[in-house]
Amino acid sequence: MDFLEEPLPGVGTYEDFNTIDWVREKSRDRDRHREITSRSKESTWALIHSVSDAFSGWLLMLLIGLLAGSLAGLIDISAHWMTDLKEGVCLAGFWFNHEHCCWKSNTTFTDRDKCPEWKSWSQLILGHGEGAFAYILNYFMYVVWALLFSLLAVLLVKGFAPYACGSGIPEIKTILSGFIIRGYLGKWTLIIKTITLVLAVSSGLSLGKEGPLVHVACCCGNILCHLFTKYRKNEAKRREVLSAAAAAGVSVAFGAPIGGVLFSLEEVSYYFPLKTLWRSFFAALVAAFTLRSINPFGNSRLVLFYVEFHMPWRRKTTKLGKYPVLEVFVVTAITAILAFPNEYTRMSTSELISELFNDCGILDSSKLCEYVNDFNSTKGDDLPDRAAGPGVYTAMWQLALALIMKVFITIFTFGMKVPSGLFIPSMAVGAIAGRLLGVAMEQLAYYHHDWAIFSGWCSQGADCITPGLYAMVGAAACLGGVTRMTVSLVVIMFELTGGLEYIVPLMAAAMTSKWVADAIGREGIYDAHIRLNGYPFLEAKEEFSHKTLAMDVMRPRRNDPPLTVITQDSMTVEDVETIINETTYSGYPVVVSRESQRLVGFVLRRDLIISVENARKKQDGIVSTSIIYFTDHSPPLPPSSPSMLKLRSILDLSPFTVTDQTPMEIVVDIFRKLGLRQCLVTHNGKLLGIITKKDVLKHIAQLANQDPDSILFN
Amino acid sequence: MDFLEEPLPGVGTYEDFNTIDWVREKSRDRDRHREITSRSKESTWALIHSVSDAFSGWLLMLLIGLLAGSLAGLIDISAHWMTDLKEGVCLAGFWFNHEHCCWKSNTTFTDRDKCPEWKSWSQLILGHGEGAFAYILNYFMYVVWALLFSLLAVLLVKGFAPYACGSGIPEIKTILSGFIIRGYLGKWTLIIKTITLVLAVSSGLSLGKEGPLVHVACCCGNILCHLFTKYRKNEAKRREVLSAAAAAGVSVAFGAPIGGVLFSLEEVSYYFPLKTLWRSFFAALVAAFTLRSINPFGNSRLVLFYVEFHMPWRRKTTKLGKYPVLEVFVVTAITAILAFPNEYTRMSTSELISELFNDCGILDSSKLCEYVNDFNSTKGDDLPDRAAGPGVYTAMWQLALALIMKVFITIFTFGMKVPSGLFIPSMAVGAIAGRLLGVAMEQLAYYHHDWAIFSGWCSQGADCITPGLYAMVGAAACLGGVTRMTVSLVVIMFELTGGLEYIVPLMAAAMTSKWVADAIGREGIYDAHIRLNGYPFLEAKEEFSHKTLAMDVMRPRRNDPPLTVITQDSMTVEDVETIINETTYSGYPVVVSRESQRLVGFVLRRDLIISVENARKKQDGIVSTSIIYFTDHSPPLPPSSPSMLKLRSILDLSPFTVTDQTPMEIVVDIFRKLGLRQCLVTHNGKLLGIITKKDVLKHIAQLANQDPDSILFN
Repeated sequence: MDFLEEPLPGVGTYEDFNTIDWVREKSRDRDRHREITSRSKESTWALIHSVSDAFSGWLLMLLIGLLAGSLAGLIDISAHWMTDLKEGVCLAGFWFNHEHCCWKSNTTFTDRDKCPEWKSWSQLILGHGEGAFAYILNYFMYVVWALLFSLLAVLLVKGFAPYACGSGIPEIKTILSGFIIRGYLGKWTLIIKTITLVLAVSSGLSLGKEGPLVHVACCCGNILCHLFTKYRKNEAKRREVLSAAAAAGVSVAFGAPIGGVLFSLEEVSYYFPLKTLWRSFFAALVAAFTLRSINPFGNSRLVLFYVEFHMPWRRKTTKLGKYPVLEVFVVTAITAILAFPNEYTRMSTSELISELFNDCGILDSSKLCEYVNDFNSTKGDDLPDRAAGPGVYTAMWQLALALIMKVFITIFTFGMKVPSGLFIPSMAVGAIAGRLLGVAMEQLAYYHHDWAIFSGWCSQGADCITPGLYAMVGAAACLGGVTRMTVSLVVIMFELTGGLEYIVPLMAAAMTSKWVADAIGREGIYDAHIRLNGYPFLEAKEEFSHKTLAMDVMRPRRNDPPLTVITQDSMTVEDVETIINETTYSGYPVVVSRESQRLVGFVLRRDLIISVENARKKQDGIVSTSIIYFTDHSPPLPPSSPSMLKLRSILDLSPFTVTDQTPMEIVVDIFRKLGLRQCLVTHNGKLLGIITKKDVLKHIAQLANQDPDSILFN
Repeated sequence: MDFLEEPLPGVGTYEDFNTIDWVREKSRDRDRHREITSRSKESTWALIHSVSDAFSGWLLMLLIGLLAGSLAGLIDISAHWMTDLKEGVCLAGFWFNHEHCCWKSNTTFTDRDKCPEWKSWSQLILGHGEGAFAYILNYFMYVVWALLFSLLAVLLVKGFAPYACGSGIPEIKTILSGFIIRGYLGKWTLIIKTITLVLAVSSGLSLGKEGPLVHVACCCGNILCHLFTKYRKNEAKRREVLSAAAAAGVSVAFGAPIGGVLFSLEEVSYYFPLKTLWRSFFAALVAAFTLRSINPFGNSRLVLFYVEFHMPWRRKTTKLGKYPVLEVFVVTAITAILAFPNEYTRMSTSELISELFNDCGILDSSKLCEYVNDFNSTKGDDLPDRAAGPGVYTAMWQLALALIMKVFITIFTFGMKVPSGLFIPSMAVGAIAGRLLGVAMEQLAYYHHDWAIFSGWCSQGADCITPGLYAMVGAAACLGGVTRMTVSLVVIMFELTGGLEYIVPLMAAAMTSKWVADAIGREGIYDAHIRLNGYPFLEAKEEFSHKTLAMDVMRPRRNDPPLTVITQDSMTVEDVETIINETTYSGYPVVVSRESQRLVGFVLRRDLIISVENARKKQDGIVSTSIIYFTDHSPPLPPSSPSMLKLRSILDLSPFTVTDQTPMEIVVDIFRKLGLRQCLVTHNGKLLGIITKKDVLKHIAQLANQDPDSILFN
């Protein structure tokens, strides 16, 4: 009786914090596909099953797009309402935000946002909004709400879903590369992350919601995978879906579907076949469309400007980091106290960026546009460069202060245990710096248009400098420097701003910031965090440039005991159990005999344990002295001997091998491109040793003079 | 004496129509890089060399961008001038095109393009432009010029550079996948292609210049590679440059730098590391910038609308195809004769597309915009749907005729031996169909706005249908159906039109057309041509779905003579020469001994021939009975025996091996991802056989019920 015709439950699955074997997963999916295809000719029902299986991928993309878009819309609306709650409340209905409240108002009022229905806290409590005491009361309420929101967020994360903190992008990158972190993309993480993201953004902390939205979209993707057997049971297929979900996440975060696909390709994904490109594209399209149709502001520009960036939690914590709640309290209190007095830090960061990108028209009422108007020289819509008025000078000082504050506060906000993105803060920093430079240039050009650098292209009374463009380029450059994105950054920026004509300055900014940042340190923020967290991530961007050979990396090393192997037809159940108990390797090579060391295949520890235990329990006659056969045909046994255990079905007959003389650069390439877990090393046809992914990572760390033990997981 | 310390010239190079070994090329580049890096610490000069080596890639990209942009500008200007030459000549200077001529004119004239300096041929010859005879004369001159241009083009291609015909994209795809076609990207191809492209476009044939521009840019890239040792000597590195050059080509063809990068990624490239993404981005940026700065029309829109698509020559020719000059004559004559009377086929195709995309304003003078104006209902810029006037009805008929003509003529134009692209013709077909549908819908909505499908969103007097958008979507859909591009298509379309807001309809069109086209046949136009030409291209998009094993594909087959092997330390020079002469394999496995069949390495035929011949000529004491050693250490020889030949240096010590039980899907994956030329097959540690790329391709063809002998090259 061949006991193992049907695979046992558990055989072929993975443990937590382990790396999947891409080749095996993809083979399994192809087997499944072949079976469905061949069955489809048998009956109509099987045919329907085959067709629905083929379309399930697209259906899944549709669902992910719908869910991610809806959640993003929900988060948008809630965050907007709660941000306004810090300043006041709407009497017409507490569920209206400031803008909605004034929009619904029937009474007439002068300033667009000063309708009688909207009461600031001082107006509500004191009955008026003037004077120092009212200001202090507003200030106090602002800080109190901010603290309330952020504390609630950190407590929820701490209590219910520790994986919900940070942006999640480094972990998603690691998961997409084949690592398993159970629960990281689960339903609890999704629920808590969605709620706490709203709280964290509303609290006014210097963080963005775009990175976390990628995590939220990936949770949606992972959860929806459970609806389809094809994706539920196959780790490789599921990762294709997650790549597309990441694209949908960026798509809703920035209102940039194409940018999302490119971000997933350039920054996040590991295995990205063209099929995934098309599916990502579809998911991103649906998500953007869903968000746009539920967007309650009726202003697609607002969505288009909602850009942020993400910085995850660190495992290596500071002293303060051991008390996450205290940390959040302190940082929120400082942020709120510093932010309130300065107009540019009090407004939401996306509004700030939107205002900085804005080019001043004649009628703009913003302080940034308070120029000395000279209407005589105005020709049509084309405003010439003008002298800055007092408003601009005030704005410059406030922006300079805001810049300093943003830079410092953002650094501290990054490491906190709340969902936090870094896109918006880093764009804001870049946009402020860009606007400051832009206005300075503009004034220089206005007062010194005869200088050599301006002559030729900037005559008097002409419009030669656009400070808004400087801000846009600054934002792109800052974001590019932090993430090292290039193509996807430019696409996201022009999808955000709709400014296709600015593609050349944006491209130049992206390239320059990448070069400058690379000169200082090679790693982008995500890669740095993957390294800090010790995830087993094999970087595809870095070239392996050392001249080591497979024999230098393989185990056993020169003076180690020889490699633990299993022979194909001479070991007993007890022998194998001894090997399992005495070693912790995740798999064992199977050889013809110990003397010849000729490789037959590879068997995984997990599969071996499950099969042997199962046979001991359920199969008659299996005792400690039963011989295990991995061969195709087993010899006839004498009647007295115990019955044998055939385990050929769990044997991987096509293990990857390299020779001991293979340069490590080729081995690294094979591991990366094929997604291997391990590779066997031979010399002149004899098995010599084994190289696992962890060995490769440790070797790379060692050569980079890092602690090889920083690679933590398997 | 170890003779082979310095590699012999020729060792490590490839013959024409052979496939490169990516792994070996990349290893060689890394070796080179390591050597330069380690030397850089020795002297300042070496340090400068190391730095300049690191920057040479970027410098090369800059040069490619500049050259490709300049050539594209030159082609643009020349083609524009020669197209106008078919209609008349400028008296102010024959080198002015129609637009320039009238632009330079000092006299006043009513119609923008009817200045006195520009003379049609009838005006020049007869002195007037009215009447039937003048019309016939203009018609005649139009046909004569068209024939002259196209005949000159086909003769130049035939006489000087046969590789210059077609679009070149299928060949470039094949070259990028590792195939070698000498001269395909050489200087003669570049010169002749540039000249004949202008001629072919000017002749008014139904072809575009965008595909060929990709070929032109790749020629630039290949030629400029010769300036840098790093790229001249390494086939893999050169292919990275060519990928970027292809991006630059699309960038200038469409004025779409991002689209170009995506096109290169999605459609053309085989090996596309992230480094290439950044470099492509840079090259595309420079090229677009160069083109825009030399664009003499001062109208970036014009460049932006110049979109086309390409169809290469076929190897399987028709009867007519054996007479390329006659074919071109006949097709040009028919095209010119049919095109002249119809306004929409007479104008250049890009102008046609531009007009079809155009949304009618109040002042538009085009026939397509001759609506019955009702100025009372006009609100600002927002034009309501209006009843079509007689001009629109005439235009509809002419467009319908143009559609039929374009479809048929384009099919015949494809196979001709002139540089020809298919982008513009297929976009034109789609745009005409889209515009026709758009106008029909508009009139339906105007007359029947109470119908259920219009109710709700289209009230009377509202502007609900934009025929120009229908044209744009139609163009995208048609192009998508032919090429099966998705993401790159959408990006190119919105870079072309600047219409970021139309991203959703464009995405929907791209997806739908891909689905519909895939349902009819899986192959895009390039893949179909690669197949027709029998190139050894291993498609990365198609999944290999059969359940065959490596042992079913490997050679020798079951009843064949055993595999030809070389032993590591027992064969004489004569033995090896016999093997070389009796077999035609491109390489031989080296084993410990024939009995054990334990694999040591792999040696390439070309390297072996060169080394043995060289040793025979230059090394003392090498005779037919000299023993060839592939081992590291050779035994001491008795004094009487002839001196030995050590060839370890040409031995590849890390050949790829798979077991005979490995599923072919994994083998195909390995070939694709690692870019292998061959892979050895083992069973229980013994060498069994070999699988080459050609074996894989033949196997795939066989399983697809195609003739396996259609794979022609090695």
